[in-house]
Amino acid sequence: LEESLAILMYDLAGADSELRFSPFCWRTRFAVAHKRLELRTIPWRFTEKDAIAEFGTERVPVILDNGKGVHDSWHIAEHLEAAYPDRPSLFDGPTGRGLARFISNWTDITLHPLIARWKVNDIFAVIHERDREYFRASREARFGRTLEGLATAALDAAEGFDNALAPLRATLERQRYITGEAPFYADYIVCAAFQWISALNPHEWCDANDPITRWRFDVLAEYQRNLKEV
Amino acid sequence: LEESLAILMYDLAGADSELRFSPFCWRTRFAVAHKRLELRTIPWRFTEKDAIAEFGTERVPVILDNGKGVHDSWHIAEHLEAAYPDRPSLFDGPTGRGLARFISNWTDITLHPLIARWKVNDIFAVIHERDREYFRASREARFGRTLEGLATAALDAAEGFDNALAPLRATLERQRYITGEAPFYADYIVCAAFQWISALNPHEWCDANDPITRWRFDVLAEYQRNLKEV
Repeated sequence: LEESLAILMYDLAGADSELRFSPFCWRTRFAVAHKRLELRTIPWRFTEKDAIAEFGTERVPVILDNGKGVHDSWHIAEHLEAAYPDRPSLFDGPTGRGLARFISNWTDITLHPLIARWKVNDIFAVIHERDREYFRASREARFGRTLEGLATAALDAAEGFDNALAPLRATLERQRYITGEAPFYADYIVCAAFQWISALNPHEWCDANDPITRWRFDVLAEYQRNLKEV
Repeated sequence: LEESLAILMYDLAGADSELRFSPFCWRTRFAVAHKRLELRTIPWRFTEKDAIAEFGTERVPVILDNGKGVHDSWHIAEHLEAAYPDRPSLFDGPTGRGLARFISNWTDITLHPLIARWKVNDIFAVIHERDREYFRASREARFGRTLEGLATAALDAAEGFDNALAPLRATLERQRYITGEAPFYADYIVCAAFQWISALNPHEWCDANDPITRWRFDVLAEYQRNLKEV
């Protein structure tokens, strides 16, 4: 590889600036490693809208790549694929890319809202004090319930999440990765949702008999290998 | 193309032997056309288990290809891909195949049970008289309700089905096919579920403003083109 290139990413952090729990930032983190690029992150909090306003967004991830700002995890993946065509492909061709978009929509629409309801109070507990008012107001508006009301429904959301995983589990009973024999961006999209959960509680989802656990460890091992190659 | 090869398929039929509504048989029908192979079908009814017992299954589709029997629509797709490598690929490589398996599981687990609950009485109305006792007993056992009880819940199932389509709809708002710019087996898996519905009621799902409708017509147009090339 040529001299390693560093991508700068604004990354959602908790009160502990080392705690990085955004599933969308995790997608980008996996993608940058897959491309064997170096990642440097800037801890960012929900209320630091001004810090990224120049990029035309209020949300992370935002990356700076050779001075070019790109936001939205899907656009970042497309940008990396186009900008680094000689590095390992994130999609493995147009069909893989088309199907990855379905996986992205399935994750966003089916999995994320259930995790958000399940973990909303765990997130509230770890975010920076100056984010709390914003987080409470925005989440209570989104879900139409108080944080305290959502706490009583957390186990229902956890059960709904487990049920929603059925197609994933059935797939991983038959093959190593969502994309078959090697991991690609579609795997990272889904694994990033589990990184969100495990950042909040490392002991969640560690049933060794669940094919999803085996797959998560395989994806994370691949991520570690990629980091070493940077 | 060389002299066309005919695949023989046992295909679930209604009292009207021209009515073919099995979503799994539709997957195989699309796959055979994609491979530019000729399909000849044998109408088969639910209770004709003896006719296919020699193939080690009680369910269709079963195909006979050069004297070799293959059953289960996924296995048939894999068989066609391996047996006809010079014909257009059904998966577009191992990543497309891995992701198609996810789409297959998502369709089987998320969409099919809702369609089955929604349409169970419409199916009962069109099947062969000698299938009725079997169909009633097996479906009442599966759903834990009488057919009459299921009729009252049909609209709930229809609404659940529409909600379950959200990731598909979001994908087709952004790209032509599930697999991107050209249709592959993953598109046929999902389109076959709609063929099941439209075989029972051709006027269902014809909202011209729904990107799913536009996609269905594109997949069906491609199917017609493929049939002409056989």
